[in-house]
Amino acid sequence: MKSALLVIDMQKGFLSPVSPLFIAGAPATVSACAHVIARCRAAGVPVFFVTRRYRADGSDVELARRERWRAGGKPLTPGCAEEISEAMPACFGSGAGDYHIRKPRYSAFFSTELDLVLRRLGVDHVILAGTTTPNCIRTSCYDALSLDYRVTVLRDCTSSATEEIQEANLADMARAGAAVVSSEELELEE
Amino acid sequence: MKSALLVIDMQKGFLSPVSPLFIAGAPATVSACAHVIARCRAAGVPVFFVTRRYRADGSDVELARRERWRAGGKPLTPGCAEEISEAMPACFGSGAGDYHIRKPRYSAFFSTELDLVLRRLGVDHVILAGTTTPNCIRTSCYDALSLDYRVTVLRDCTSSATEEIQEANLADMARAGAAVVSSEELELEE
Repeated sequence: MKSALLVIDMQKGFLSPVSPLFIAGAPATVSACAHVIARCRAAGVPVFFVTRRYRADGSDVELARRERWRAGGKPLTPGCAEEISEAMPACFGSGAGDYHIRKPRYSAFFSTELDLVLRRLGVDHVILAGTTTPNCIRTSCYDALSLDYRVTVLRDCTSSATEEIQEANLADMARAGAAVVSSEELELEE
Repeated sequence: MKSALLVIDMQKGFLSPVSPLFIAGAPATVSACAHVIARCRAAGVPVFFVTRRYRADGSDVELARRERWRAGGKPLTPGCAEEISEAMPACFGSGAGDYHIRKPRYSAFFSTELDLVLRRLGVDHVILAGTTTPNCIRTSCYDALSLDYRVTVLRDCTSSATEEIQEANLADMARAGAAVVSSEELELEE
């Protein structure tokens, strides 16, 4: 089994309380994410940062959130205020072998080259970290299952607006066939 | 706004208590589904039946459910027992303008021609009915939102293993931008 770590949407636009797209549970997961990123790099497991970066005209913002995005200072857009711009938390650092993928919608696989790159690398197991659990983590999980990847979701590295939403979504994904574990329980084979 | 009704996975393999893929909440939604199907046909709203039909060798069964499928009599497969085979409930009838789409995974859009046909018809609003809410309805909902369709989910025409799962998933989809209404509240413009 060859694994890859997918770190999804861990950006200031979702992590900063001043952003209209802020996810209440996300800041508490930053240190656990940083730790698992470092472990994967050390183990030779490729790390993918999958992020948003909207166009200034809003043509690639999901219709359902476009008004909130516009009224809230256009987070995740080049040229917007620094505290809601796209940079990742500094503690994630930068690995020479990291991959960066921009995604236009919820799922990391939707209209992106992610599946092509994972196939080229021979990856058959994806480990999911990031935010939010009900939207981008979950859609990525189901797309990965549909593409026949094995999937592990890291419960302490993913986040939701409330603990109730977090637990309900983790339970659904476990029933659909994903392994849901804490980052401490994660075993890296490589 | 031009609408289409998507009726997803309303097949004996999910509706029959003897199937290993039985969804406890699904049989109670059959009559509401039949009613909205009849309303849509009468209003000229195209009706899409999106269903599973697995190959006998299991090569297109999701990995996570393949063992359960094999051990349980291969539901949704040509030649399997009638009570878990693919036919829709008889009360759905058959409309001259109905569309039938076979899907190999959870989402009605995943590796199917659904989006192409909807575009050709000028549809910009999809109405979701069928089962299960956390899997096939929800993945179809997020794919439809990602493709810029407006989405309505019919709460009494969709179903889950438990009421708790049903309500948690409807709430998540509403937060993501879908309209969640009962079939009685559904207004057909055409």
